[in-house]
Amino acid sequence: MTLDTLLAAIDADHDKAVARLMEWLRIPSISAQPQHAADCVAAAEWIRDDLASMGFTASLRQTPRHPVVVATHPGTNADAPRLLYYGHYDVQPADPFELWASPPFEPVLVEGPHGKRVVARGAVDDKGNSMTWIEAMRAWCKVAGGPPCPVVAVIEGEEEVGSQSLPAFLRAHREELKADVAVISDTGMWNIATPAITTQLRGNTHLQVDIKASSRDLHSGMYGGSARNAVNLLASIMGDLHDANGRIRLPGFYDDVKEATPAQRAAWQALDFSEHDYLRDIGLSIPVGEKDRGALERLWARPTADITGMWGGYTGAGSKTVIASEAHAKVSFRLVPGQDPQRIVGCFEAFVRERLPADCQASFTVFGTSEGIEVPTDSRFIRAAQAALADEYGVPPAMIGCGGSIPVVSQLKEILGLDTVLMGFGLEDDQVHSPNEKFEMRCLLGGTRSHARMLARLGA
Amino acid sequence: MTLDTLLAAIDADHDKAVARLMEWLRIPSISAQPQHAADCVAAAEWIRDDLASMGFTASLRQTPRHPVVVATHPGTNADAPRLLYYGHYDVQPADPFELWASPPFEPVLVEGPHGKRVVARGAVDDKGNSMTWIEAMRAWCKVAGGPPCPVVAVIEGEEEVGSQSLPAFLRAHREELKADVAVISDTGMWNIATPAITTQLRGNTHLQVDIKASSRDLHSGMYGGSARNAVNLLASIMGDLHDANGRIRLPGFYDDVKEATPAQRAAWQALDFSEHDYLRDIGLSIPVGEKDRGALERLWARPTADITGMWGGYTGAGSKTVIASEAHAKVSFRLVPGQDPQRIVGCFEAFVRERLPADCQASFTVFGTSEGIEVPTDSRFIRAAQAALADEYGVPPAMIGCGGSIPVVSQLKEILGLDTVLMGFGLEDDQVHSPNEKFEMRCLLGGTRSHARMLARLGA
Repeated sequence: MTLDTLLAAIDADHDKAVARLMEWLRIPSISAQPQHAADCVAAAEWIRDDLASMGFTASLRQTPRHPVVVATHPGTNADAPRLLYYGHYDVQPADPFELWASPPFEPVLVEGPHGKRVVARGAVDDKGNSMTWIEAMRAWCKVAGGPPCPVVAVIEGEEEVGSQSLPAFLRAHREELKADVAVISDTGMWNIATPAITTQLRGNTHLQVDIKASSRDLHSGMYGGSARNAVNLLASIMGDLHDANGRIRLPGFYDDVKEATPAQRAAWQALDFSEHDYLRDIGLSIPVGEKDRGALERLWARPTADITGMWGGYTGAGSKTVIASEAHAKVSFRLVPGQDPQRIVGCFEAFVRERLPADCQASFTVFGTSEGIEVPTDSRFIRAAQAALADEYGVPPAMIGCGGSIPVVSQLKEILGLDTVLMGFGLEDDQVHSPNEKFEMRCLLGGTRSHARMLARLGA
Repeated sequence: MTLDTLLAAIDADHDKAVARLMEWLRIPSISAQPQHAADCVAAAEWIRDDLASMGFTASLRQTPRHPVVVATHPGTNADAPRLLYYGHYDVQPADPFELWASPPFEPVLVEGPHGKRVVARGAVDDKGNSMTWIEAMRAWCKVAGGPPCPVVAVIEGEEEVGSQSLPAFLRAHREELKADVAVISDTGMWNIATPAITTQLRGNTHLQVDIKASSRDLHSGMYGGSARNAVNLLASIMGDLHDANGRIRLPGFYDDVKEATPAQRAAWQALDFSEHDYLRDIGLSIPVGEKDRGALERLWARPTADITGMWGGYTGAGSKTVIASEAHAKVSFRLVPGQDPQRIVGCFEAFVRERLPADCQASFTVFGTSEGIEVPTDSRFIRAAQAALADEYGVPPAMIGCGGSIPVVSQLKEILGLDTVLMGFGLEDDQVHSPNEKFEMRCLLGGTRSHARMLARLGA
């Protein structure tokens, strides 16, 4: 078998691949909504049956909520590395429905500037993106009797609701899931012509502080000028999060931050990213963050402090003469490799307590923590992905970061000890989580061919 | 007629005065609640009839909402100054009902540390307090055929809902309401043994600022480190309202502040006010405000800046990774004589705009403005009130301020040109606006006798 035979088979099967994706997209597997629980099972069974039809040993595994699909194939070369592919069959809720040009679970093929695209909830996130590696498996099975590497596929149904069943599942099936690397297609390309590998993800410490001052709400006329106002106090604390240069003032916050290497900085600078355009799209023109850092470094490799919610006093229409007893803020610290998310909780507590008068109280609730992730770029797996993408697209992939977190990447590292190759085929305008979500069929095909190429390299 | 005869008549009639007050209190004249509109009319008619029964010419005047009672008496000495007495028959809503020891509109006499007290909604605010001067009128009418001064009484029914009909009413009846001074009993004593005259009231500029940054809410992972966060921005602005010494940073804010005189400061310092106890009662121990000013000066004669409400981002349970597009704050500036409340709007706008990045917007909504009030203490009216109170209580009245606003005092000054003698008989523990509102019958009697004495002095 030559690679050309494999790629030709993929090309020949493309229309059917599009039809299969559209069939999967018809199942409204919204994990957040209990009335769609049966649809989640149906979407899991659909992809289980699809993988089984190729020759995979595939089954559903129950969890406290939605089932996980596990499918394994021994591969045609037992000496090749075992690869764990991860995807998710669940999708975001589709409302507001009135903003969809066509019903979210009646997928349609629409002609766009890049050729045909499929419009439906889940088109790219993550049914379409998952289908890139699943279609590659199909081609390998058809042409060569199986993928050249041993494969275990894990397709879960709770990604859009926080993957809460996943850690226990990974722990319980550690042996079965043993692998040399994880591969995920749930991210994006740099642009339609340039593939990307995401090697850097920020972590997060998200918590709430509740400030208590007086024992009850007070009249602002009667007490103003003597009694502490919890909202004034919280504003003064939270307003002090950044210094004039955009640096975060938490004591010890930057202690363990891993600096980007000169090579990384140079690579990011070489990308054609315009912060001006990026901000213009959201109605802004002046960047925030550390003044002495580049835009992509600030977005991918520097930590942040964003208040995600704040409230206190009277928030209805009109006015009320009140000095509030309590005030509240939620704050998200995006973290980078090196920073310990638990330690950041302590840094924030210290920051608040330094500014807290002795007669006021502060309490803290941690919603979640995750570490920043950096995938080593000198591994054979990343090199294989780079080469596969370069071969397919004719340009080397952009090695990019992502300002957000992908919790499963941390879980795979922590529980199974796996690094992850994040190689996805979404585009910035795919409307992820929004009405009229779409996926370019050109991306489906290019993604399938890229995965097929990577398997060829790793199984050789 | 001697003063002793008059005071003896008041004492002899005291039980009946208590019964009259309790009868008035049975009428649930809650101005805020449309279902009590007829009760408001009933309470107005009740006090109209009571004043008419003494010999006053009394009538109800319609307004867009609740009627105003106007009652006049020519007095027995046409050369004496004409006095405008103001009170209000409307009361606050009584909920939460479950916190009342007895139903709010079934007044009861309860024995307390100062003797009998009546417990009911409106007991002190303002039916009981109004009854001090109304009972004094009754005694003068009975013993001497009328008060020694010409009197016009104005008893409105919208004080608890902002006195919105009153300014137009005052303007429309300027001639009829012509007087030399206004007298109001809607304030408090210094303590049970020490009467008080309130000569200083703070004004207020209450407004809202709405901040707009990005054109839509953003994901805090994807945009954190580049995009402006409206809540971070608003916190940094509002957290900057005060400097480290408690002074307000608005440009020009203190320009026109009238400083307390050394005599005022000395008088306030002579009052036995413990800020420690005052704060302890509300769970605090460390005062705020300007560090170089005394407690009563800060509460009565210095301006403040209190955020009365603030909100932005996600304020529900749990967390959401959002950089909010908008953030909002309401702020109340308590003002002192000299400060122009409209000018303070401009000072705040300038303060915000100085701190506003060029790509963000701020808009402002003014809820209300009122000037700080200072009643000249060298008038014959204040001197008469001081003497009457000193004669009655055996100690000179405390000359005090009030940190809040009493809008009618500004309206009487602005529309009718009248200064106001604020001489009230409430106590700090009267539970004004709260469940179990009460009025000490010792205060009703002392207040009645004090008003009778003041009339004697002014009519002589």
